Amino acid sequence: MAGLRFGLIGTGFIGRAHAIALKAVGTVFGIEAPVCELLADTTTDSAAQAARALGFRRSTGDWQALVADPQVDVVDICTPNHLHREMALAAIRAGKSVYCEKPLANTAGEALEIVQAAEAAGVRNHVGFNYIRNPMVRHARELIRQGGIGDVCGFRGYYLEDYMRDPATPWSWRCQRSLAGAGALADLGSHLINAVHFLLEPVARVQGKLQTVYPVRPDPRDGRPRPVENEDVARALFETGSGIPGTFEISRIAGGYKCGLGFAVFGTRGTLTFDQERMNELRLYTDGSPPGERGFRTLLAGPEHPDYAAFCPAPGHGLGINDLKVIEARDVLRSFAGEGDPWPDFREGYRVQRVMEAIEQSHAAGGWVSVPA
Amino acid sequence: MAGLRFGLIGTGFIGRAHAIALKAVGTVFGIEAPVCELLADTTTDSAAQAARALGFRRSTGDWQALVADPQVDVVDICTPNHLHREMALAAIRAGKSVYCEKPLANTAGEALEIVQAAEAAGVRNHVGFNYIRNPMVRHARELIRQGGIGDVCGFRGYYLEDYMRDPATPWSWRCQRSLAGAGALADLGSHLINAVHFLLEPVARVQGKLQTVYPVRPDPRDGRPRPVENEDVARALFETGSGIPGTFEISRIAGGYKCGLGFAVFGTRGTLTFDQERMNELRLYTDGSPPGERGFRTLLAGPEHPDYAAFCPAPGHGLGINDLKVIEARDVLRSFAGEGDPWPDFREGYRVQRVMEAIEQSHAAGGWVSVPA
Amino acid sequence: MAGLRFGLIGTGFIGRAHAIALKAVGTVFGIEAPVCELLADTTTDSAAQAARALGFRRSTGDWQALVADPQVDVVDICTPNHLHREMALAAIRAGKSVYCEKPLANTAGEALEIVQAAEAAGVRNHVGFNYIRNPMVRHARELIRQGGIGDVCGFRGYYLEDYMRDPATPWSWRCQRSLAGAGALADLGSHLINAVHFLLEPVARVQGKLQTVYPVRPDPRDGRPRPVENEDVARALFETGSGIPGTFEISRIAGGYKCGLGFAVFGTRGTLTFDQERMNELRLYTDGSPPGERGFRTLLAGPEHPDYAAFCPAPGHGLGINDLKVIEARDVLRSFAGEGDPWPDFREGYRVQRVMEAIEQSHAAGGWVSVPA
Amino acid sequence: MAGLRFGLIGTGFIGRAHAIALKAVGTVFGIEAPVCELLADTTTDSAAQAARALGFRRSTGDWQALVADPQVDVVDICTPNHLHREMALAAIRAGKSVYCEKPLANTAGEALEIVQAAEAAGVRNHVGFNYIRNPMVRHARELIRQGGIGDVCGFRGYYLEDYMRDPATPWSWRCQRSLAGAGALADLGSHLINAVHFLLEPVARVQGKLQTVYPVRPDPRDGRPRPVENEDVARALFETGSGIPGTFEISRIAGGYKCGLGFAVFGTRGTLTFDQERMNELRLYTDGSPPGERGFRTLLAGPEHPDYAAFCPAPGHGLGINDLKVIEARDVLRSFAGEGDPWPDFREGYRVQRVMEAIEQSHAAGGWVSVPA
Repeated sequence: MAGLRFGLIGTGFIGRAHAIALKAVGTVFGIEAPVCELLADTTTDSAAQAARALGFRRSTGDWQALVADPQVDVVDICTPNHLHREMALAAIRAGKSVYCEKPLANTAGEALEIVQAAEAAGVRNHVGFNYIRNPMVRHARELIRQGGIGDVCGFRGYYLEDYMRDPATPWSWRCQRSLAGAGALADLGSHLINAVHFLLEPVARVQGKLQTVYPVRPDPRDGRPRPVENEDVARALFETGSGIPGTFEISRIAGGYKCGLGFAVFGTRGTLTFDQERMNELRLYTDGSPPGERGFRTLLAGPEHPDYAAFCPAPGHGLGINDLKVIEARDVLRSFAGEGDPWPDFREGYRVQRVMEAIEQSHAAGGWVSVPA
Repeated sequence: MAGLRFGLIGTGFIGRAHAIALKAVGTVFGIEAPVCELLADTTTDSAAQAARALGFRRSTGDWQALVADPQVDVVDICTPNHLHREMALAAIRAGKSVYCEKPLANTAGEALEIVQAAEAAGVRNHVGFNYIRNPMVRHARELIRQGGIGDVCGFRGYYLEDYMRDPATPWSWRCQRSLAGAGALADLGSHLINAVHFLLEPVARVQGKLQTVYPVRPDPRDGRPRPVENEDVARALFETGSGIPGTFEISRIAGGYKCGLGFAVFGTRGTLTFDQERMNELRLYTDGSPPGERGFRTLLAGPEHPDYAAFCPAPGHGLGINDLKVIEARDVLRSFAGEGDPWPDFREGYRVQRVMEAIEQSHAAGGWVSVPA
Repeated sequence: MAGLRFGLIGTGFIGRAHAIALKAVGTVFGIEAPVCELLADTTTDSAAQAARALGFRRSTGDWQALVADPQVDVVDICTPNHLHREMALAAIRAGKSVYCEKPLANTAGEALEIVQAAEAAGVRNHVGFNYIRNPMVRHARELIRQGGIGDVCGFRGYYLEDYMRDPATPWSWRCQRSLAGAGALADLGSHLINAVHFLLEPVARVQGKLQTVYPVRPDPRDGRPRPVENEDVARALFETGSGIPGTFEISRIAGGYKCGLGFAVFGTRGTLTFDQERMNELRLYTDGSPPGERGFRTLLAGPEHPDYAAFCPAPGHGLGINDLKVIEARDVLRSFAGEGDPWPDFREGYRVQRVMEAIEQSHAAGGWVSVPA
Repeated sequence: MAGLRFGLIGTGFIGRAHAIALKAVGTVFGIEAPVCELLADTTTDSAAQAARALGFRRSTGDWQALVADPQVDVVDICTPNHLHREMALAAIRAGKSVYCEKPLANTAGEALEIVQAAEAAGVRNHVGFNYIRNPMVRHARELIRQGGIGDVCGFRGYYLEDYMRDPATPWSWRCQRSLAGAGALADLGSHLINAVHFLLEPVARVQGKLQTVYPVRPDPRDGRPRPVENEDVARALFETGSGIPGTFEISRIAGGYKCGLGFAVFGTRGTLTFDQERMNELRLYTDGSPPGERGFRTLLAGPEHPDYAAFCPAPGHGLGINDLKVIEARDVLRSFAGEGDPWPDFREGYRVQRVMEAIEQSHAAGGWVSVPA
């Protein structure tokens, strides 16, 4: 059987990560390698150059040609947020399987439109939430499911980076609501909300507070102050459907944090903590030791944990961020072949979006806001 | 000049810590040692035994006799929370200086009554918030004041312990509102709120959520389930008077945490983090290094930090929790001698109480609740 | 230009890592991808199966056919240690470029034979020491070269794993001198010695002590005790050529350590520490801060560090062990194209072997043993 | 019963620590407090001033008067190393119990002279090795004794500080052999050797290497270079009496380390690690968890560990360096009352000294040197 043929749109940070993952996934998992068929970028030239660098067979400066191309089985969308909707809808119309980066759209309304189109058309779909592919995050989920920390009774989640901490960092599309949607909430918070959904269950109620520390940034064209239209920091209290409470803290201006996505899951019989900056570690506290010998254990990722062994048979040697994308590519290939779990699909992308909007509404109105069921 | 003569009421956990501190403070700081004059406990016998063990000159089974004793200059209140009010008011009436453990009272109303009595009587007063005496916490404050992390734009505070995590832990006075006031909020959260006041400024608005994971606990008399009347966990969003936002997470059932009082202070030019479980460390991120060589620095407590040198001339050798009480005793002695900063005084105890009540009100009503000015 | 065509011998742990790296290196670095031309394994069937799984064009059960194959430019040797010599010599005779895993051979004598053959034949050659490809290790070297920690005056090196800690772990070829050469010293210590050579300069004198904690292990065929012929642990004092002293500690039975390759480099103006289990971190102490604000900084790998940006433009997101092999593959491609640094070449493999032998001699004889120049 | 009456000689770093401990020990342990009877310093005035600051009843500028004073039961020697011998011998002749700081003397010969005098006179004696009083170090020892990590098969010990790292740090008595004896080995290494004796058993053979990075330092009188007569760094391989091998690394110029006394104890069933800079933690690895959930546990000091509860009933609140001296004072009081373990006595001080001398001899001669039995 020939591998699925990918058409990749976008060659920035995340587009390159997709390309690297598509190259490696066959060898890592010993499965049929996908075909890097067609690459679209903003111009014919830049697309051709990227195709050479990233190892794609063909290239185009016209993403619509890519969507229409009969040699493309999967449309893989790695463009800035505001382009997701139009491209996803076009790909759905063309009957392609669609793999889209997070956040799915800029508003819950747009996300719902995409979900409904995909479900109506019956096309397979997937959102690229890479952090939940981490073997240690998956192991955390299994531990929770098996009751390893008892009943979950609390959650702390944070995602801290500092890529916009410097007030001299210029204004970019990320600062404009029509292009980026929310700020830190969309870029970083979407991962965190997805992690709660992955580890526990959907978020049902929120009480949030947004903060824009730098209301203007220098326009890269002329250096003049230009308004920032979304938040630098989001904080929230939340509850899941069954009533598990928690906190969120999400920032793009938290000095010193580079990929500070982390959580603590509190249970009636133990605690789990994780931090992506030490992505090969999971800290676990349980009572299973005599008094005087209890303490948080630092578990190092190894072949006992999901998917690790495909990368390395020896424990503790360490996976990297791109390896998470390789696992995700495997998940996408399985899902698009009708095997395995299609989650996180577009509907999950929509659910995440609704939680984000509820936080924004709570910020505006005060008090608890329910996430529509 | 003779040292101040202390009358200590209460010989439990914190009473012993006071006694140890009173013995050491003179030698550590090279100042006039206070006199361990009189000790009160619940019976004549237990008081006599404790006085021998803790090195007090005299003892009594009647705390009112202690308050009235002419050889006592300072009444030092280390009893369970619900006794603070009556004892403090009596000591104030007797014109004594009063040193009271946190929380000052079980309600903001009672706390205000004590404050007003003390201020009307003109007696000196102090609340025992020991964690802010830590040289590294004081250093954090100085760094913040000096602009070492720029303008403060966010705060994360948590205080996690697990002393009531086991559902089999029996019901105690800590579970009864009339004896303990709030639960985790009063016992642990009071320290955290005080830390915000110490490091930044008063908390002005809160939005909170309380949680009682174990609504009943076995009565120690007969093992039958007895209702727990206060919260195991408190979470809140808050803002200070000038609008700095933050989060609180406070738990007495957080598995694996033993003295997990910590904070992160986010500034426009850096970040500070602290955790009492590693109380001799402060983590600091600033930009003062070339790219590629930036990162959180782990500062080890040393003689460059406030008060450390009184304990040890060599850096990194480590202070302990009881040393914080020694610093506090020095602060009390100074303050009661009319030197140095009388803060945290009873009024601060009252302010902390009001923040706690505002969190409780927000839990009940939803939405933001302002702390009365 | 077509990519170099690789013939890979061996499909175990490290052979798969080579295959994964060869697939990814073109896309990661935007260079001409090497061709996965031919795969040799012990039988025709296993080779065919591995070729499918790992994405090689052709396969063979006869490694000598691979060496002779005119479509193969590079012979990539990933077999157990005792096979390196014969295969490398054959590849050299065939005029191929040779890429061989560490350790180069089982004795210094064999290693020298290989070096001399390669140098006489003028074929390009490279040894697979992957840990020194780590961006943080390379950054450490640059810092040292630039005088960032002053003059180097001491070194601590360790490599701790526990893969043979359980006495029930069966006897394997790793326990037999004729197959594996030394024990922990060859498998793990070779990396550590190479790291000293990379970071500082060649080791010149050693004083060593070997230890075999489990002198027999169960034979996998019949469970009967079978003698272990090499060491579980090696410890040594050493000096480099210019007189920098240091210590080595190398163990395959150190409970809890999974990839505990680490070092501390002490300089007259600072200290650097690294541990592969936290491979994305480098800890650096220098005096460049005011008193009271000095401490070890934890540098997180990012695009400011060598080669990181090829994998990810965002700092702190984390590389993994397989990414080090991708960097190594890039180094091999450059080196075999006559560009870039051919080091670590076979001669370095030989130098490492001599240090290992000197440690063994010192163990036997006591006292300092010089490494022949 | 009245408390033992102490005569303290020396009021520097360690003398103050003794005074603080003597003040606190009665209250902490609920035992008869020792009496701070007499303090000797170099002049009448400085002694009087120190006595006031440290809370001693009387003072003298003549240590021989202190030794002869009939109100003094215990002579407590906290002076620079080279004075220990004369003072200890005088105190022994006076029939006093003698409590002397480490190292006992400047040479093994002198140490033996003191031991023989004390044993001949039958006076009680004790050496002040404070780090082994740490509840976590004691717990480590208990775990080892109980077989918690199986049979011990290796040890790594280090003691790193940086108090002389700056070449501008002036010459002091610590640099002169006749005053200080060895350098880092005596000041720091003595603790480490004692820790091996405490945790395992006596060191029997060593192979060592000394290093003086700064052979001259500025004379504080005139700034001119003055020779440093002892080592900045000592490294050694060692074996205990039963053949457990290990390494030592001891430095007074290791940048960034402030109290870096640490060890790893490797056993056949687990590993223990400790570092004094995080003195309230012990890291323990054992197999007692399912695969996938194994890892180093961080044990936080608490009332389950020896002596902790005397300071604080709540776990994780943290002891400090001065608390170790309080435990030591309790040990001394017990031992001088004929109760409890008199170890580490002067004979242990002598054994430590012999190991230090063996390391020096090995440095000079090369090869293994046995420590005389």
